[in-house]
Amino acid sequence: MKLNPEEAKRIAKQLNYRHNGLITVVAQEASTNQVLMVAFANAEAVEMALTSGEMHYWSTERKKLWKKGETSGHYQRIVEAYVDCDLDALLVKVNQVDGACHLGYKSCFFRQLQDGEFKTVEAAAR
Amino acid sequence: MKLNPEEAKRIAKQLNYRHNGLITVVAQEASTNQVLMVAFANAEAVEMALTSGEMHYWSTERKKLWKKGETSGHYQRIVEAYVDCDLDALLVKVNQVDGACHLGYKSCFFRQLQDGEFKTVEAAAR
Repeated sequence: MKLNPEEAKRIAKQLNYRHNGLITVVAQEASTNQVLMVAFANAEAVEMALTSGEMHYWSTERKKLWKKGETSGHYQRIVEAYVDCDLDALLVKVNQVDGACHLGYKSCFFRQLQDGEFKTVEAAAR
Repeated sequence: MKLNPEEAKRIAKQLNYRHNGLITVVAQEASTNQVLMVAFANAEAVEMALTSGEMHYWSTERKKLWKKGETSGHYQRIVEAYVDCDLDALLVKVNQVDGACHLGYKSCFFRQLQDGEFKTVEAAAR
């Protein structure tokens, strides 16, 4: 899914960047609905994502725009995008190249709470 | 899913409340994997959720602990809980009573980006 730059700018402007200038973004694998990760985006990241068709975020640790996969090759190609009721969160359904998690898992949520402990329940993707 | 108070406190202490003292929480309908909402929690909300088996959040607007459903009756009963790689986000699979969204929809993400506009794609739940 891609928008032209004017459409992308218009959509990005509609969002409410009320968390330190950011919105929250949930990425979900389009084919399975597995939640892959949660991160943040500023208006520039939203514009870049919508014009390129590939997810861009704002890295709160590195304090910079971050194209998902720019170093790992594990891009997220946007299939569908949804906005929440108060316009401060996006849900993107993506085709995830390899795994979303930098630790080698498909999803960053690879540990489940079981018997009072977080236990790894997913096989490493690579 | 419920933990005893000591287990819940121990689990809550393991998380990294690095976003203004909060973690990010994604709630997903357990039976369908539909993403319902995204919100935030502090350590107290995590403890309350894990001991009660029902989702509690920190309302960043009202600046107070918030039991989901406390006024609407639309509780979220926790089925499974997952933590992400850097321990600053939780994914909870829940049984959602009625809809998660205060506007009457099952999911807060009831608007999809289509043809350059956000369009309502979900029927109201009630």
